[in-house]
Amino acid sequence: MMKGNFTLPGEAGHEKLTLELAKRWGADVIRDSDGTKLSEEILRAGYDIYSTICPIREHNDWIRQNPRARQQTFLCTAPRTAGSPRLIVRLMDGFFKEQFEINDSAAAMKYWQVYDRTTDTLVDRDRWHYDADEGTIVIHTVPWRQYTASFLAWRVWEEISMYNHTTNNWDKEHLMQLNPYLPDCREYLENWLKDWCAANPDTNVVRFTSLFYNFAWIWGSNARNRHLFTDWASYDFTVCPEALDDFAKKYGYALCAEDFVRQGKYNATHRVPTQKKRDWMDFCGGFVRDIGKGLIDIVHGAGKKAYVFYDDSWVGMEPYNGHFEEFGFDGLIKCVFSGYEVRLCADVPVPMREIRFHPYLFPVGLGGAATFSPGGQPGQDALDYWITARRALLRAKIERCGLGGYLSLTQGYPDFIQAMDTILDEFRQIAALHDTGAPMTLKPRVGILHAWGKLRTWTLSGHFHETDRHTLIHVLESLSGMPFDVEFLSFDDVRGGVPKNINVIINAGAAGDAWSGGEHWGDADLIEALTCWVHNGGVFMGIGEPSAYPGRHSFLRMAHVLGVDIDNGERACHGRWQFETEPIPSLVPDGAHIAPRADVVLTDGEAMVLAAHEGTPTITLNMAGRRGGVGIYLSNFAYGAENTRLLMNLILYATSWNTITDGISDNPNVECAVFPHTVVFANNAATPQRAECTIGDKTYSAQMPPFGMQCLNMNRI
Amino acid sequence: MMKGNFTLPGEAGHEKLTLELAKRWGADVIRDSDGTKLSEEILRAGYDIYSTICPIREHNDWIRQNPRARQQTFLCTAPRTAGSPRLIVRLMDGFFKEQFEINDSAAAMKYWQVYDRTTDTLVDRDRWHYDADEGTIVIHTVPWRQYTASFLAWRVWEEISMYNHTTNNWDKEHLMQLNPYLPDCREYLENWLKDWCAANPDTNVVRFTSLFYNFAWIWGSNARNRHLFTDWASYDFTVCPEALDDFAKKYGYALCAEDFVRQGKYNATHRVPTQKKRDWMDFCGGFVRDIGKGLIDIVHGAGKKAYVFYDDSWVGMEPYNGHFEEFGFDGLIKCVFSGYEVRLCADVPVPMREIRFHPYLFPVGLGGAATFSPGGQPGQDALDYWITARRALLRAKIERCGLGGYLSLTQGYPDFIQAMDTILDEFRQIAALHDTGAPMTLKPRVGILHAWGKLRTWTLSGHFHETDRHTLIHVLESLSGMPFDVEFLSFDDVRGGVPKNINVIINAGAAGDAWSGGEHWGDADLIEALTCWVHNGGVFMGIGEPSAYPGRHSFLRMAHVLGVDIDNGERACHGRWQFETEPIPSLVPDGAHIAPRADVVLTDGEAMVLAAHEGTPTITLNMAGRRGGVGIYLSNFAYGAENTRLLMNLILYATSWNTITDGISDNPNVECAVFPHTVVFANNAATPQRAECTIGDKTYSAQMPPFGMQCLNMNRI
Repeated sequence: MMKGNFTLPGEAGHEKLTLELAKRWGADVIRDSDGTKLSEEILRAGYDIYSTICPIREHNDWIRQNPRARQQTFLCTAPRTAGSPRLIVRLMDGFFKEQFEINDSAAAMKYWQVYDRTTDTLVDRDRWHYDADEGTIVIHTVPWRQYTASFLAWRVWEEISMYNHTTNNWDKEHLMQLNPYLPDCREYLENWLKDWCAANPDTNVVRFTSLFYNFAWIWGSNARNRHLFTDWASYDFTVCPEALDDFAKKYGYALCAEDFVRQGKYNATHRVPTQKKRDWMDFCGGFVRDIGKGLIDIVHGAGKKAYVFYDDSWVGMEPYNGHFEEFGFDGLIKCVFSGYEVRLCADVPVPMREIRFHPYLFPVGLGGAATFSPGGQPGQDALDYWITARRALLRAKIERCGLGGYLSLTQGYPDFIQAMDTILDEFRQIAALHDTGAPMTLKPRVGILHAWGKLRTWTLSGHFHETDRHTLIHVLESLSGMPFDVEFLSFDDVRGGVPKNINVIINAGAAGDAWSGGEHWGDADLIEALTCWVHNGGVFMGIGEPSAYPGRHSFLRMAHVLGVDIDNGERACHGRWQFETEPIPSLVPDGAHIAPRADVVLTDGEAMVLAAHEGTPTITLNMAGRRGGVGIYLSNFAYGAENTRLLMNLILYATSWNTITDGISDNPNVECAVFPHTVVFANNAATPQRAECTIGDKTYSAQMPPFGMQCLNMNRI
Repeated sequence: MMKGNFTLPGEAGHEKLTLELAKRWGADVIRDSDGTKLSEEILRAGYDIYSTICPIREHNDWIRQNPRARQQTFLCTAPRTAGSPRLIVRLMDGFFKEQFEINDSAAAMKYWQVYDRTTDTLVDRDRWHYDADEGTIVIHTVPWRQYTASFLAWRVWEEISMYNHTTNNWDKEHLMQLNPYLPDCREYLENWLKDWCAANPDTNVVRFTSLFYNFAWIWGSNARNRHLFTDWASYDFTVCPEALDDFAKKYGYALCAEDFVRQGKYNATHRVPTQKKRDWMDFCGGFVRDIGKGLIDIVHGAGKKAYVFYDDSWVGMEPYNGHFEEFGFDGLIKCVFSGYEVRLCADVPVPMREIRFHPYLFPVGLGGAATFSPGGQPGQDALDYWITARRALLRAKIERCGLGGYLSLTQGYPDFIQAMDTILDEFRQIAALHDTGAPMTLKPRVGILHAWGKLRTWTLSGHFHETDRHTLIHVLESLSGMPFDVEFLSFDDVRGGVPKNINVIINAGAAGDAWSGGEHWGDADLIEALTCWVHNGGVFMGIGEPSAYPGRHSFLRMAHVLGVDIDNGERACHGRWQFETEPIPSLVPDGAHIAPRADVVLTDGEAMVLAAHEGTPTITLNMAGRRGGVGIYLSNFAYGAENTRLLMNLILYATSWNTITDGISDNPNVECAVFPHTVVFANNAATPQRAECTIGDKTYSAQMPPFGMQCLNMNRI
């Protein structure tokens, strides 16, 4: 059995278990976790030591003396209808009072705004005033209109601490979070870290969890609607008056509350980003890098390495904005529920990448479901997550893996211990295969086209279960285990002409959102570039409401290439093309299913309908131009083994008119990866599977148990 | 048995049958139909005689000599992608060549337009030319953009004739249609009518079928998509260069092709009308009245009456535009599939109103289904249509009824003969009840709010089966048999304040359409007026996507009153209110079903959820303000007995907190109408039903066979 490349969470008081499992699982590193400590016995056992620090938490004493140091956010009240010429709006109505307090300092109030939401216009400052005693805004109204007030609020409970308290009934002191944008906070933080490094001589690696600003997570006062707004890649929690003032000086214009709260909808990642949002992200990226680098330098100065956990308070640290290397991190750790998160981790420019497996060693997991507690099946959970990660690991190299949490909880769960035996064995086999050379990729190079482009490489905005209503995450999850090179393209990247090496472009999203592209599709240059490219042989695949843009002759701006359009009611008086479905043998695997939508219509009757439901097409294929260009439309897409195979088949068929290609298994439940000397068969199913795969003139076959993986040495067969 | 008030279609060659059925069914009038004639024996049998004329048809000889006299329309080609700097667009590609010919006269070509549909801009005239030999437009393009050409086309086959030919495999000469806008055509037509009147001395009533311009019906060349565009209330078929020129003089601005073709979507009635469309309708109304009145005067001068059939070539003759009486018609005949069409007919300001029953005496009916031919069940069909008409007849008086078509076809269908016995008996009973006084209406007065207002009283755009994808037609059909007064309101009618006598306003439609209101909801005055009205006790009921308008804080602009909004993706990161459904006993009848939509969210958690599906509300009720105002939301509405009762219950409950009211039956399958001395029970079900109804301190009950009707004399009980 191979060893190493594995980080085990240790736990003081459970030294025997820690060292036993470290040996059994071949750990080379032991870490602490939020809530656990390592004892002298563990620290002295000859392993490298990772120590977890959350730089902005655990400073309550200092923050109490310096309440300015707390972090902030803009909040927008729910709209209220004016029943008379005077309306009183209670600012904190509906917000979780343990999370927020009004910041009514003069510096903050400069940024407050009252909006008439009936006309969507700003209310003049002389038509409202703040009553500090009552915490209310009093507005001189136009009766029967609706109003909101937007204000700056202190965040007085660090959100991850808040979540753990409420989910796990913790009863500890509420932790606050430090705002390192303020020079005195930064100085305090640097001194604190210097002291910390001196006090922890055994630590080899300081594991930042994570940096300074949490993803946006606004809680409500009513248990029936606790999570008012949650977005993993929103920058709402970075604001403070000092930063806003500095932004105005640097960028030449001032941001206001409305630029953040946007009618109460906030700046969610799935909305097409405004230039203001991009500027603010750029600004935040700058100061987060500056402060972060200062801390990393301290860690390096103490002779330790600095790794960062890419979650929670990650905001401002973008792995794909071209500046990540400036931090100087020695490693990045990504917790992984899904295949695409493996790929996200794998492409970050950093010397060492580690994935942290699920489940976390905690009594409960996602949404409060039992894991290491009665009713939990942690071994099964671990294998389920592993299967999704494994297929991505077969495509891209990750150096290390690990676990986190309370190791003692694994006692009594032998299925989990055994599952980890398997997982670690397969992880190390795969890592070793990558050392023999990169796995084979097939020719079609896929571009994912959306408003964020490269910045949101292999992710949308958080974990799969947080974004699963967006079709694109299902596409990314499918692609994460396919033998294709994938690029992430913004509209700017293709407006002047599609990059030469791209063979297939996928645009998958809902009308108006960042994934489909929204307002970008008003641009004729974009449409001309894509149309020209398809007519010269490109493949444009649209899923859901691709290229949707209202007000033009077609709702889908690429309808002329797709051969289908979406009729959102305007064509209720137009006839619809009748069609016969034309199944292409082997293209749509048994069990593949594309959810229908009733509004899909053929544009000119020319597109081949590969599948349909109650008279509306669900999968179409349209020849565009005379040079082999193709438009493909799917009315929807949900991740699954058969749909993954369908997507791969469509990509292969449209680029080569052939789905039986080297290195592809003949069984949708089994995927193959071809390394220089080895072909790997991975069974993604919970049942035994058999599969064949042809490479050149040789055919390989494997018979696998449920979830099994088999490596065949191609030189020996 | 009562007699009279019934128009029987006679048929030469079937004199015995004609006179027997005339006697059996108590006819007072015999008519001819399209395709039948009346013989001397019938004409002399002592009945009044209606003669059907279609004024614009049957003039092929004269039109052949005067091809300018043919009617026209604008057509817009399907968009074509330019693969090079030169694009050739074949104008007639895709259009039905038996219906259209290019009008490339200089007068017509002035109105032609070429559009760049990628940018949605007009292409300069010097960048395209017409090749008359090829019937093509040659465009100097920006490559990879899409282009359309819009042109005037002669319509060379009258559409009703075309439909009958193709549906019934007729093999007669294709009839053309005269354009009476041209002075020489008008003069010809008047002379023809004078001659006709002189030649038909036995005719008492000239029955116009109908006037001059057909509803829009653009056919395609491909049998897989024959009906490119069909809209019963579109004015596309009224155009000719002469009229367009005169319009420009009269209204001070010129219309162009794009004002009619509108990106190829045309001016369907369900689109929010532009001012240009309203002006053109006004202009057409003027000349149609002028020409029509000239013909009616001729009929009157010949000592005959003039009735008009309100269908087919009705365009320009609006019964609800305030000018209908200027025609001077003596009667209006409406063919009736549904209850709302009875109400539509009943409120037209004309001395005599007649409904024509379905099925038409024809081998096939709707969509080619068998009626009086093997497989048909005309008796059952007649009763099914009758049940829908009867409930509306119980609310509004109609003087006469009739049939149309080939009487001889009834031979061999005794079930139809018997069904007509019943139908005529009940029709006459109901008519007699109306002579005793108006039926009782309950207090809530209902306003239907949409972009057309009164002009589209009791209709959308044609028959139920033509508009059944619009929720509002289901609402109208349900309302047509309820004991409420109903008004049709435009946004102008409520902008300055809701009319005082309105208790309930219903807004039912899809985002952006004329029924929901589209751009009208951008108007703050409208929202203030409605909000004020609800807060003072009004009931606003929204169905589907009521008050939808994009770009504001809520998608439904009345969300603050409804307590629900539609999240079309913008709030994917927002939490949704959890709720418990709170069924109110007796409000939602067993069997009622409102189709869910996944995007409905509670705004502030205050609305009562009466019904829900998979966590999204389908029926909600929200108290708005302190004076009893209510917002009601239904995610959808489909006509049916139980849903009709649901709608009535909601109206009654929201206005009086009580659904058990005088004059309401206790059985959703049975409806009651209360005349001054009589309570009528009508069983709408195909099964025997029993019902009770309380009026004042008396309770009445009835036991009825399937579809039965029972009249109880209240004075005697």
